[in-house]
Amino acid sequence: MKLDERGLLIVISGPSGVGKGTVRNALFQREGHQLVYSVSMTTREPREGEVNGREYYFVAKEEFEQRIREKKFLEYAEFVGNYYGTPLDKVEAKLEEGNEVVLEIDVQGAIQVRKKRKDAVFIFIAPPTMKDLLHRLQKRGTESEDVIQMRYEKACREIEMAYMYDYIVVNDTVENAADKIMAIIRAEHAKTIRTMAGYKKLLEEGKK
Amino acid sequence: MKLDERGLLIVISGPSGVGKGTVRNALFQREGHQLVYSVSMTTREPREGEVNGREYYFVAKEEFEQRIREKKFLEYAEFVGNYYGTPLDKVEAKLEEGNEVVLEIDVQGAIQVRKKRKDAVFIFIAPPTMKDLLHRLQKRGTESEDVIQMRYEKACREIEMAYMYDYIVVNDTVENAADKIMAIIRAEHAKTIRTMAGYKKLLEEGKK
Repeated sequence: MKLDERGLLIVISGPSGVGKGTVRNALFQREGHQLVYSVSMTTREPREGEVNGREYYFVAKEEFEQRIREKKFLEYAEFVGNYYGTPLDKVEAKLEEGNEVVLEIDVQGAIQVRKKRKDAVFIFIAPPTMKDLLHRLQKRGTESEDVIQMRYEKACREIEMAYMYDYIVVNDTVENAADKIMAIIRAEHAKTIRTMAGYKKLLEEGKK
Repeated sequence: MKLDERGLLIVISGPSGVGKGTVRNALFQREGHQLVYSVSMTTREPREGEVNGREYYFVAKEEFEQRIREKKFLEYAEFVGNYYGTPLDKVEAKLEEGNEVVLEIDVQGAIQVRKKRKDAVFIFIAPPTMKDLLHRLQKRGTESEDVIQMRYEKACREIEMAYMYDYIVVNDTVENAADKIMAIIRAEHAKTIRTMAGYKKLLEEGKK
């Protein structure tokens, strides 16, 4: 029995290096859910093998900027000369169909979404310790010490933003973190504030 | 990793006949939790086989009334000449030890607790339909039609109080309802408002 038939907008966020993407992937491998990705829109060129609407929605810069003016993004950012954003209409359509739409975005993006969507569920993925986060950044092995140090300092600032989120999930193990997120989704659907409309309908039916 | 080391006070409530007790029993049969019952205090005589501190704390009427004056109950009620109540100090001690304390009480009791404990988690067990609730009341078979009708009308009024609770869990099947409550407990422990103190400690440790 599902009192709340609308899907949830789930924002998974946290500092860089914390393993947001890995946790999200583990989440999508679970059974018995209606989780869907939110596909971002970008102005960068498609790479080989990328399909419009699958990896990204690819649009021209003019169209993206037009959409910004029309407030058609949940959040967006510019990164090395290209725009990346979450198209509001696509997300809304998926939620209406009863899907749980998962946004995996950085802390800055999450703060933009927070301002617009009081109904979204904000989950902060935290490292077990700051030391652990530093190790994870170092293990990537593709960046210089300077870049790692810069990213680590950014992460330290981002980690202070956890209080803006509804939940803090420690990524001690990926499976554990994914379990907790599944529990959060389940619990959120049972929240009185989300179920009241469905509940009233149910009781009216019962009285017939 | 548990950021929130204190146990939760979980109030399971709902109209009479909805199956609160059955759901609670199913909950206690789950593995991997630290759920404990809250033992009520009463002024009624112990029945054969009942042990003080197990079924109830048995006290004299004078002691009970003294405790009422000292505001030592989370909630209490008088029922056919005897008092029944939830002793605050016992609940508090169990929470401090990290146990989740489950209170299974009626709607009137839950409203009393709501006023005193903003930190408690309030779960309303709802019937799938009102018809279903009526059937459950009839199936007990021990009461006259008049008593059943009275209980049903009371249940109809109680059901309107669901908006006072944090969560509404439909008792469509007992296992389903117990699953949802387990998810709620897990999610509540990850709430930022409960984890912030533990989170800060964790990060301080990490910086050493």
